[in-house]
Amino acid sequence: MVREHISLKEAWELLKAHWGNRDPLVKNVPLSESLGGLLAEDIASPVNVPHYPASAVDGYAVSSNSTARATAATPVVLNTEKYQWVNTGAFVPPQYDSVVMVEDTSLKNDNLYVYISVPPGANLRPIGEDIVKGQIVAHFGDEVDPNLMALFYAVGLRELPLLSKPKAIFIPTGDEIVPRKPEESPAGLPPGKVMESNSIMLEGMFEQWKIPFVVGPHVKDDPEKLKEVLADAVDKYDLVLIGAGSAKGKRDFTANVIEREGQLIFHWVLMRPGRPALLGTVKDKPVVGMPGFPMSTMVVAWSVVYPLLQLLMKGNFDENKILDEAIRVRDKLSLPLLISHSSPQGISEWLRVKVVRLRDKKYAWPISGGSSSMRATADSDGFALIPPKIYECPKGKEIEVRLTKEVLWEKRVLFQGSDDPAVAQLVSFVRKRGADLVIRSVGSLGGLAALARGEAHLSAAHLLDPKDMSYNDTYIASFKPISDKWKRFLLFYRQQGFIVKRGNPKKISSIQDLARGDVRIVNRQPGAGTRVLLDSLLREEGIESASVKGYEDQTMTHLDASCRVAWGMADVALGIKFAADALGLDFIPITEEPYELVIPEEELTHPGIEALIDSVSDSKFIEKVKRMGGYRWP
Amino acid sequence: MVREHISLKEAWELLKAHWGNRDPLVKNVPLSESLGGLLAEDIASPVNVPHYPASAVDGYAVSSNSTARATAATPVVLNTEKYQWVNTGAFVPPQYDSVVMVEDTSLKNDNLYVYISVPPGANLRPIGEDIVKGQIVAHFGDEVDPNLMALFYAVGLRELPLLSKPKAIFIPTGDEIVPRKPEESPAGLPPGKVMESNSIMLEGMFEQWKIPFVVGPHVKDDPEKLKEVLADAVDKYDLVLIGAGSAKGKRDFTANVIEREGQLIFHWVLMRPGRPALLGTVKDKPVVGMPGFPMSTMVVAWSVVYPLLQLLMKGNFDENKILDEAIRVRDKLSLPLLISHSSPQGISEWLRVKVVRLRDKKYAWPISGGSSSMRATADSDGFALIPPKIYECPKGKEIEVRLTKEVLWEKRVLFQGSDDPAVAQLVSFVRKRGADLVIRSVGSLGGLAALARGEAHLSAAHLLDPKDMSYNDTYIASFKPISDKWKRFLLFYRQQGFIVKRGNPKKISSIQDLARGDVRIVNRQPGAGTRVLLDSLLREEGIESASVKGYEDQTMTHLDASCRVAWGMADVALGIKFAADALGLDFIPITEEPYELVIPEEELTHPGIEALIDSVSDSKFIEKVKRMGGYRWP
Repeated sequence: MVREHISLKEAWELLKAHWGNRDPLVKNVPLSESLGGLLAEDIASPVNVPHYPASAVDGYAVSSNSTARATAATPVVLNTEKYQWVNTGAFVPPQYDSVVMVEDTSLKNDNLYVYISVPPGANLRPIGEDIVKGQIVAHFGDEVDPNLMALFYAVGLRELPLLSKPKAIFIPTGDEIVPRKPEESPAGLPPGKVMESNSIMLEGMFEQWKIPFVVGPHVKDDPEKLKEVLADAVDKYDLVLIGAGSAKGKRDFTANVIEREGQLIFHWVLMRPGRPALLGTVKDKPVVGMPGFPMSTMVVAWSVVYPLLQLLMKGNFDENKILDEAIRVRDKLSLPLLISHSSPQGISEWLRVKVVRLRDKKYAWPISGGSSSMRATADSDGFALIPPKIYECPKGKEIEVRLTKEVLWEKRVLFQGSDDPAVAQLVSFVRKRGADLVIRSVGSLGGLAALARGEAHLSAAHLLDPKDMSYNDTYIASFKPISDKWKRFLLFYRQQGFIVKRGNPKKISSIQDLARGDVRIVNRQPGAGTRVLLDSLLREEGIESASVKGYEDQTMTHLDASCRVAWGMADVALGIKFAADALGLDFIPITEEPYELVIPEEELTHPGIEALIDSVSDSKFIEKVKRMGGYRWP
Repeated sequence: MVREHISLKEAWELLKAHWGNRDPLVKNVPLSESLGGLLAEDIASPVNVPHYPASAVDGYAVSSNSTARATAATPVVLNTEKYQWVNTGAFVPPQYDSVVMVEDTSLKNDNLYVYISVPPGANLRPIGEDIVKGQIVAHFGDEVDPNLMALFYAVGLRELPLLSKPKAIFIPTGDEIVPRKPEESPAGLPPGKVMESNSIMLEGMFEQWKIPFVVGPHVKDDPEKLKEVLADAVDKYDLVLIGAGSAKGKRDFTANVIEREGQLIFHWVLMRPGRPALLGTVKDKPVVGMPGFPMSTMVVAWSVVYPLLQLLMKGNFDENKILDEAIRVRDKLSLPLLISHSSPQGISEWLRVKVVRLRDKKYAWPISGGSSSMRATADSDGFALIPPKIYECPKGKEIEVRLTKEVLWEKRVLFQGSDDPAVAQLVSFVRKRGADLVIRSVGSLGGLAALARGEAHLSAAHLLDPKDMSYNDTYIASFKPISDKWKRFLLFYRQQGFIVKRGNPKKISSIQDLARGDVRIVNRQPGAGTRVLLDSLLREEGIESASVKGYEDQTMTHLDASCRVAWGMADVALGIKFAADALGLDFIPITEEPYELVIPEEELTHPGIEALIDSVSDSKFIEKVKRMGGYRWP
């Protein structure tokens, strides 16, 4: 009976019930290929180590009797027949039973003066001291690491019985998929077609896990073809992964095909993303249906595929550690949230998170982006799995964060402020100075508010006060900053203008055009400097915002706004030139504004801020931003 | 000026002063080989993702206008020209501006009933929603992980600018070394010759670090030859490692050769092992002298070589994390010591440690074994670096433990008790049952004392009371166990006898022979059951221990004692047959004794104890031990 809508814990129980505690398969592997393998048997040494009495020091082999009563004041003197120089590790011949360290002797005219009395066996490693022939040197289940490899080589083992690794195959499915080819480029792809890239991600994960993995033939949305490929796969592989087709759209055949050919064990796991995950068995081989979005594939690989691999290899896995191992967690921390988050109730939610240290306290926050976003995953420092019982996560609530990337806590600074692509260019300049910069685009006003709450190391703003046409002064004065003083740095001047379709088909050239009725705009979020600018321009011309179509449509960044124009959801957006260029749109300059960094005085000695301040005057940075267009240095 | 006897921290400062902050070398690497590489530049996407307006769900593409005022009670009805089925990810043609989820519709006679009003853009991913053309998707310094590989493939990048990895060469030196050859076996090696195995260990470490590594030619103890090989190495490689020859024995030439050919930067680092480590530069290339014992080589690889590699690659490293990364630490814990430990003052000491959980508290203890021991490293769960200021570590003192192996805390049991090689055979049987067994051979009496202090999950003893010839009763009664009841399990009977040289040249056959004057014994430590037996046998015959030569010489295990006989330090030891067989010695049976496991009643439900009790009656275990010889089951 197929189990549906189960928790991850229940899924693991089902995995164990079906594939746990079987006798592991064993394979003899050459020593040179055994790194990372798991021993399938105890390994006994075929030789003694050392295999001869060896000196443990540099010194002289002597008979302990001949040193009796020697002291620093009354050394004994030995002639050349009574001693022999031995290096560390050298053979001590049978006529000697001990070694005097070179520091405890002196040599005069070939006579050895010994200043210390040594007992039999002194500074000597007897035969088998480290390892005796027949002694177990490594046990069933041990992982072969570099030290064990050297040990096995030293005792003469050239082949090892290892737990046989399961062989996995991944079958990508879907009419919209363009099968992976190195020469294939996304540049000329027709709409509706996408590059098959999940297999390259899984390939990398399996490489890190050191498990054999192949990509099978691409299968279009055709259940008969899937059935055929699956039958072949379960004959040749130990584990079959089917990409996409596990949800319940018109073409989600995976569950049906498994039910016809074998048995469906579970479908739908109460987690997000990854919910459509399914598991079945065909000819006793496990078959996993993996939803197709990249983040979903990744999550199902961690939480279903990796545990299965461990079961097939070792017969068991440790539920407390399995996810950390699968994810290759570098560090696990309980951190308070920097912003609030709503999680779906009754479902485990995988979050991509970023982290920062602010005034000696560490924080985490989730990155927005759906399960289709590979960029959000690339951006993240790690992941958090929010348990099903938790749904409202207010600011400050502690969540358990699994870090997968190295975080330079002491040298990382958090920018919260106005969105600008030139700021993103700063990251590498800061990193080359050994520090790190993290950017949250929350708008000019949002940034200043975050700074006032102590939730950022720096901000940036371009907030126009239409009363006196000043920038930022009025707004900064309206906050009561935690610290008394905020330093302001003019980074550059930038052009703001209309982003319109190529050729400007609606002939938009002035603010008045926005109220024309046949023109739809896309706006920015409240608090964004660009929105403040738009409001000011509208007021100047006496235009009510209600008369501007699309005024209520909000986007968070210049690029987002530009995307909407490119796609046709809007005719125009106010924004910067780079955003127009990026999407091949036209740009009509309207005004130029100062873009200022705002940094609390107390943060000026933070190594990340120091690196950043050094970076903004780096001529290579200035060059780079100038080439982007629409920027001017004072 | 060469710096001598410096701390590791000072060594790192010197590394940074010489090789820090240089411009990194960059190399274009095919995407398929880039996993684990570090980006040398920001990477901007050459395309938009998605590159067309895509449906975010399975459903129907519609014009949002056509759904105006639709509700569940008053659906709008659309004919076939007004809608189109779209799968998740499918292209939404320009005549539609939104998608209705399939759940919010029904289809009757080709007419679509829509039960919800959708705004423009609903369930639609605009062009560039995830990534806009020109947007930075990964920054300088980011590590290429499986997600990034998929992302780069999806946006059409087939080659990546990566930080060029330094190429390292290792030159093994020493007359005693037998260069590495797969066909070479240690079985026929003459005394004084050892297999070169450090290179295989370093090869494994570099493979884990993903840094290119080659083994250079073996150099005998000949400074001219070393000079020649070094000159060639610095021409062709970025980093040169010289194995052995860095201490101050007669043949330690490495420092001199570097001084003649370049500059010596430091020699002697205040750590143990690894103290003779040295660093120099020849033709601006770093050259590291690594002491030759395996543990010393490993420690210098972690603490000098790995930081150097990071400097050469990235221009910097984080001192707080560099060792964890080099060692590939799985977990870092502060744990109290289970036994006291004396560390050398003024020197950082690397300990190999094992760990266990006893009554909900975790503990660690150091494993004995010199830096020559590969077995002790194989045995360890991880490492601890004791700071130079700490020298006396009493029991209970917390030390920072870096775990490198997976520890099954909940299922691992600690055996402290009588030494017996058959107990070592139990480990794999316990592991196959999903649990784990750790063995400390501390003698019968030591084991019972540990049990009484709550420092072991189980013990084993064979303690004869000569008064009534009973075993264990008297001794167990003398302890006041923490728990009221200790359960006893007779594991087997085993023979004790004389371990003598092959052919028994001294004709030893009875206890009386031990007092003969021309016979030297090697004894076991006080508290060992075998020593108690010897004392009892001597007393029975009225022999004073003072009249037995070698009575004061102690060893900790049967195999240790046997080694002493094999090497000739003693003529005879009392011990078990396996220890004689292991070293090719003769065995003269003297008596048979019961060997009992002792387990506190409260531990009987511990999963590790359950697995162990199940294992001792496993017929395969009994078979295996019987084949060892000298054991009998009741």
